[in-house]
Amino acid sequence: MVKLVECIPNFSEGQDLEIINNLVEIAKSMPNVTLLDYSSDANHNRSVFTLVGDSEIISEVIFQMMKYATDHIDVTKQIGEHPRMGATDVVPFVPIKGITSEECVLISKELAKRVNTELNIPIFLYEESATAANRKNLAKIRKGQIEKMPEKLLLDEWQPDFGDRKIHPTAGVTAIGARMPLVAFNVNLDTDDITIANKIARIVRGSNGGFKYCKGIGVMLEDRNIAQVSMNMVNFEGTPLYRAFETIRFEAQRYGVNIIGSELIGLAPAKALIDTAEYYLQIEDFDYNKQVLENYLLN
Amino acid sequence: MVKLVECIPNFSEGQDLEIINNLVEIAKSMPNVTLLDYSSDANHNRSVFTLVGDSEIISEVIFQMMKYATDHIDVTKQIGEHPRMGATDVVPFVPIKGITSEECVLISKELAKRVNTELNIPIFLYEESATAANRKNLAKIRKGQIEKMPEKLLLDEWQPDFGDRKIHPTAGVTAIGARMPLVAFNVNLDTDDITIANKIARIVRGSNGGFKYCKGIGVMLEDRNIAQVSMNMVNFEGTPLYRAFETIRFEAQRYGVNIIGSELIGLAPAKALIDTAEYYLQIEDFDYNKQVLENYLLN
Repeated sequence: MVKLVECIPNFSEGQDLEIINNLVEIAKSMPNVTLLDYSSDANHNRSVFTLVGDSEIISEVIFQMMKYATDHIDVTKQIGEHPRMGATDVVPFVPIKGITSEECVLISKELAKRVNTELNIPIFLYEESATAANRKNLAKIRKGQIEKMPEKLLLDEWQPDFGDRKIHPTAGVTAIGARMPLVAFNVNLDTDDITIANKIARIVRGSNGGFKYCKGIGVMLEDRNIAQVSMNMVNFEGTPLYRAFETIRFEAQRYGVNIIGSELIGLAPAKALIDTAEYYLQIEDFDYNKQVLENYLLN
Repeated sequence: MVKLVECIPNFSEGQDLEIINNLVEIAKSMPNVTLLDYSSDANHNRSVFTLVGDSEIISEVIFQMMKYATDHIDVTKQIGEHPRMGATDVVPFVPIKGITSEECVLISKELAKRVNTELNIPIFLYEESATAANRKNLAKIRKGQIEKMPEKLLLDEWQPDFGDRKIHPTAGVTAIGARMPLVAFNVNLDTDDITIANKIARIVRGSNGGFKYCKGIGVMLEDRNIAQVSMNMVNFEGTPLYRAFETIRFEAQRYGVNIIGSELIGLAPAKALIDTAEYYLQIEDFDYNKQVLENYLLN
């Protein structure tokens, strides 16, 4: 059975359509790797590509995209709203099917090594691939952005995982790593009081003592005049969707507030939703791999 | 995108391992068609194969299996507990992905025509493919079994859809048609009173005024000493799993009885479970085809 991996490379170019189109062409250039989606934002001056494919091949496609970006994007001259430190800014690998998180860590390390050797870009391994606690979080690695990177790399704790303490003159620095698929899941409340959504977000999110793999904030949906708990579920196996949902339900009840709906933004892995059905239907001894018909077809 | 079809041919042979193994080999013999499962029962003297694959190719595989069965199984001499009328008894096609029920009806009719022309077996179209109301239900077509088929075919209303009013001397008669995927879904109650499960089964099943696409009976699980509502969901889009489940829940409450679990038997399409998650999480504007990651990979 093929091992399927998702990869979401972020490039620091969101305005030059020729460069963006050429990256699209490279992303589509090999069999068994599919470009699911891409989006470019001129204000952010950034493009994000979502590819899925065979773990053996996807790294080659990503490498070719990075090689092109190295030759055509000068991050030292790039200006946009989004923080950035490299022409290829960040490359996360996500296990989708028939592959473990640990195997994705290996894939990320192999690509990191190759990129450093062949393209001479210093690499930080991040998230699951991180070699130190302070390198897990991308924001910490990227802090100071491209402008401060030359001096940051000289600090004791910021020796790159691959490469010397010296940025690539145009491509800067890249972070590569493995992480779990992220599900963007928002729950709408029948209240116009955002303070309630904020209180509940603090309860469910890991950073305040809630669920470890849930990030969340309160958001006001101005057009509907309702408050929302907006979440990123960063590991749906560690913190299932239904658990956050039911917690929001019973916490909201304290304020006489009810859930009136939810939103799933973008893509979710089937298992994130099927785990939820398994919970609500109280299915005994359910075997996701063996009992879901489509799982026999992804090979 | 490939159009994926499931086909579950039933053969009237469950004892002769050579014949069964040869059918297995034929089922596995072509690319893009996967044999998901097969089971043979010596008492029933019947073998059931579950194949999934490309709609263009699966009919060829099924035809080759039927040709082999025609040459090697004599249904007029076959004895077993399961009712039967043909060496190949029944061939249902089920839409899985990227294909409609109507297209599966066309596939079933093309195969029926070919089987009649090349193998000289009279064919009844059944379920979605049926050409008359009394031909929808397989049990009605098969009533009288192989022994009564020669005279049944002479009756006004039993002219076969393809072929003459004359059984094949060894292969008998075959039913071919399209149907929706079936989900076997059982709900366990915290009571040892089977009459409660029976009452609830009558409420949820279509034949007594319940949900059109639900069949159900009460069953006693002797080893656990609990009663169960055992259902076949014959069209999970017409009657979703959660709807039957929640109805059982509120009907059971009348007797002070609760749901303690459920069982999903065999395979279910991902959508049957994801529809259920969509309901419980109250997801607004969910698009199954576009928002489930794996749907981009099945092509």
